[in-house]
Amino acid sequence: MDIESELGNSIERSADICPSSLDPADWERFRTLAHSALDQAIDFVRTVRERPVWQPMPEHVRAALDQPLPTEPQDLESVYHDFKDLILPYTVGNIHPRFFGWVHGAGLASGILSETLAAALNANCGGRDHVGLYLERRVIEWCKAIFNFPARASGILLSGSSMANLIGLAVARDAARASHPGEELVAYASTEVHSSVGKAMHFLGFEDQALRKIRVDGDFRMDTGALTLALDQERAAGRRPFCIVGTAGTVNTGAFDDLETVASICESQGIWFHVDGAFGALAVLAGDLRPRVSGIERADSLAFDFHKWMHVPYDAGCLLVRDGDKHRQAFSSSPVPAYLTRAGRGLAGGGEWPSDLGPELSRGFRALKIWFAMREHGVRRFGDAISRNCRHARYLAGLLASVPDVEVLNPVSLNIVCFRFRPAGLNGAALDSLNEDIAADLQESGIAAPSTTRIQGRLAIRVNITNHRTCEADLDLLVRTAERLLDEKALPHAS
Amino acid sequence: MDIESELGNSIERSADICPSSLDPADWERFRTLAHSALDQAIDFVRTVRERPVWQPMPEHVRAALDQPLPTEPQDLESVYHDFKDLILPYTVGNIHPRFFGWVHGAGLASGILSETLAAALNANCGGRDHVGLYLERRVIEWCKAIFNFPARASGILLSGSSMANLIGLAVARDAARASHPGEELVAYASTEVHSSVGKAMHFLGFEDQALRKIRVDGDFRMDTGALTLALDQERAAGRRPFCIVGTAGTVNTGAFDDLETVASICESQGIWFHVDGAFGALAVLAGDLRPRVSGIERADSLAFDFHKWMHVPYDAGCLLVRDGDKHRQAFSSSPVPAYLTRAGRGLAGGGEWPSDLGPELSRGFRALKIWFAMREHGVRRFGDAISRNCRHARYLAGLLASVPDVEVLNPVSLNIVCFRFRPAGLNGAALDSLNEDIAADLQESGIAAPSTTRIQGRLAIRVNITNHRTCEADLDLLVRTAERLLDEKALPHAS
Repeated sequence: MDIESELGNSIERSADICPSSLDPADWERFRTLAHSALDQAIDFVRTVRERPVWQPMPEHVRAALDQPLPTEPQDLESVYHDFKDLILPYTVGNIHPRFFGWVHGAGLASGILSETLAAALNANCGGRDHVGLYLERRVIEWCKAIFNFPARASGILLSGSSMANLIGLAVARDAARASHPGEELVAYASTEVHSSVGKAMHFLGFEDQALRKIRVDGDFRMDTGALTLALDQERAAGRRPFCIVGTAGTVNTGAFDDLETVASICESQGIWFHVDGAFGALAVLAGDLRPRVSGIERADSLAFDFHKWMHVPYDAGCLLVRDGDKHRQAFSSSPVPAYLTRAGRGLAGGGEWPSDLGPELSRGFRALKIWFAMREHGVRRFGDAISRNCRHARYLAGLLASVPDVEVLNPVSLNIVCFRFRPAGLNGAALDSLNEDIAADLQESGIAAPSTTRIQGRLAIRVNITNHRTCEADLDLLVRTAERLLDEKALPHAS
Repeated sequence: MDIESELGNSIERSADICPSSLDPADWERFRTLAHSALDQAIDFVRTVRERPVWQPMPEHVRAALDQPLPTEPQDLESVYHDFKDLILPYTVGNIHPRFFGWVHGAGLASGILSETLAAALNANCGGRDHVGLYLERRVIEWCKAIFNFPARASGILLSGSSMANLIGLAVARDAARASHPGEELVAYASTEVHSSVGKAMHFLGFEDQALRKIRVDGDFRMDTGALTLALDQERAAGRRPFCIVGTAGTVNTGAFDDLETVASICESQGIWFHVDGAFGALAVLAGDLRPRVSGIERADSLAFDFHKWMHVPYDAGCLLVRDGDKHRQAFSSSPVPAYLTRAGRGLAGGGEWPSDLGPELSRGFRALKIWFAMREHGVRRFGDAISRNCRHARYLAGLLASVPDVEVLNPVSLNIVCFRFRPAGLNGAALDSLNEDIAADLQESGIAAPSTTRIQGRLAIRVNITNHRTCEADLDLLVRTAERLLDEKALPHAS
């Protein structure tokens, strides 16, 4: 059979073979527009300092976007025109060097390139035999190397650590159910644990009190003495502690639980050790921070993100599981449905499918942007950027020390500084309200965007330095602007 | 306070302010490379007919990709060079007009443009007040209009229908737990239900037998008489039927359950009605298919995908929930943690956050590519393409009717044709093996890529026509090639 000539015939007829497809009627016109959009995309990143960090969407923009369901086709040019007017100016702002709110990565210019290519490939990475799955396995191997996980470990790319915490806990639950059927299962974490862990427990069918919160010490780390005591009491009451969640970098203050001690407790008591390392885990790449992460290599499962401290475009997170077989047992369909059967050869062949390691069957090609980022920068440059962020947090704490009526509310051990203004003459509620106002003023000024949180009950302006574009001058400007905003308020002591 | 001049000062210093960021050292060099990659991306889609549908990755390519963890930075040019050699040729193939395997969308050229822009914005759409959330709410409103859902309905964008089924069932479970605390809950679906529903039940903590499978009729639709009987028996045994999953377009044959009847059963018995409409739901956009979907507007929750029959780049799915309050109750953290508190103004303001409607806090900007696609093509063009796919399935069934020794194994009511060769002299196992071989031969030929499944126990070559680029000539070529591959086999009757 002459397949080549068969294929050749098909090509010759292809130009006008399917005029009713959804492809562009005029490819060169489309190409011109796409190049114009690409220049816009690049300029948006390159000139980020020339714009406000964030601005609210005006009412007329909201109204203009409030269009009814589009039934008829529209020129792509006009859709793009609306994008430039109505969407581009009103985005989150996390690529800006003075975005200090929440823990958002800053993106990478090269992410534009890798996502452009991924959109053309349009790969579904749930299964089948193709390079998308191969590249995901390669990225997972790199992550295992970063965290010193054993060869038998498995991993899967996910939207982020909320999903990775959820899936890690699902694996832990299934393993505990298999080894201790019928027992009442309870899990542990510190009071500083991220809310996604409690949500995950609920999602998995646990009663809300099945997640026990252990108190923290003065450095916001889990009190492991209290943990040991709680475990003993639980067992005496006939319940089965099945999982302890350690945090590598809490969202409030960047604290690291004592992972070595928690790992030892888990090992000696046969308890699953899950680590939520959403952003903090990658501190392992920074020479000066590495000791803080010690013990993470002993985790049974580890959640962390590429879109935070590796700046891969949103979204991109990961779960690693030490015992790959337990991971597979939790998610492989048994029996495999006929339409997902693996063949010995052809497109339905290949190795393990990601749909055997998580709940998703349709999945985009996240591995591509991660592979590009890790190869372009190498993990060393990410580690350097992480060290720099933490150095800048200490620099900011130093600046604040010389500002009158300011107190820093957390030990600045990582990249987060929580502070508040405390002018004389204001009580607790007034101070909370003042600082909340200043945070919102800062955001609305467009100059800097911190977030707020509460530290031991007190409202704090929270500055989280995750951005590779942030420099000392940005922190100078933040402090100067905050001071001015305070001065402009007619406070009792200033009147 | 003169914020403008403050901002101005900052801009002037910005050019060389942060030389150690991860931005390109030479922006113009980066721009040149990005434009070259964009041309590559566009050409990849435009010339798709000139390439094989799929080809296996050669061993030397796998070996070349098997690189150790990158520690040092590399030129982006060299990374891109590797991409072109090692990745681009070995992707899934679903953008090709003769990819007939599984239900994969074919992508849109304009998806390259929208994803390029999304990568530059790098928005996290888990929360906060910005256009990403606004656009998601707008897209959800459009979906509510498509399916005639009420104003109080809620919705969330997800990776696909596996996740949407999972989250829909989670909402159903939580609603049932609230109204019937302590009761044993069971769910129902047909034997043709997608495997993701069973996986979802397991994930949510149910025992495997909590999903009851109801037999199907000769058209592969749930036998609603058997369903009613099963519900009565269950109640008599003291268990609580809490959810019935109807399927709009089964993966094996494209069958639609009788959604009107199932909806009436659910309404009269107070049971949650979830519809898995992964690809079939959007048949509502095709005038000739619309009656088939009747009753979908009565669903309590509905899962469907944009990346299948709307061809939005992977991944993009959706869950709609009729009673938005029940949706919120299942996912809102209570109390809201301090670091996620909503403010009255500023960046932490705005309306509902998507993290209150699902398990993810980090989420990419899926709404942008959907908004572009729906505005560019209007739902009418998608409906036309869906009708065309189904017309082509009937055309293929017609072609196969004139091929000797072929039988079509399903009623061709939508876009799926399952057939097998049945030459004389072969028993069941030999027929299965022959047809499996031909499917893999077709894939490896590069000419066409069907998948396989089993229909009533018999292995079938499954042709799923979801691609807007497919035309009749592609189906002619498929049949001609399959016949030749059969002829080349030394079968008993041909020797």
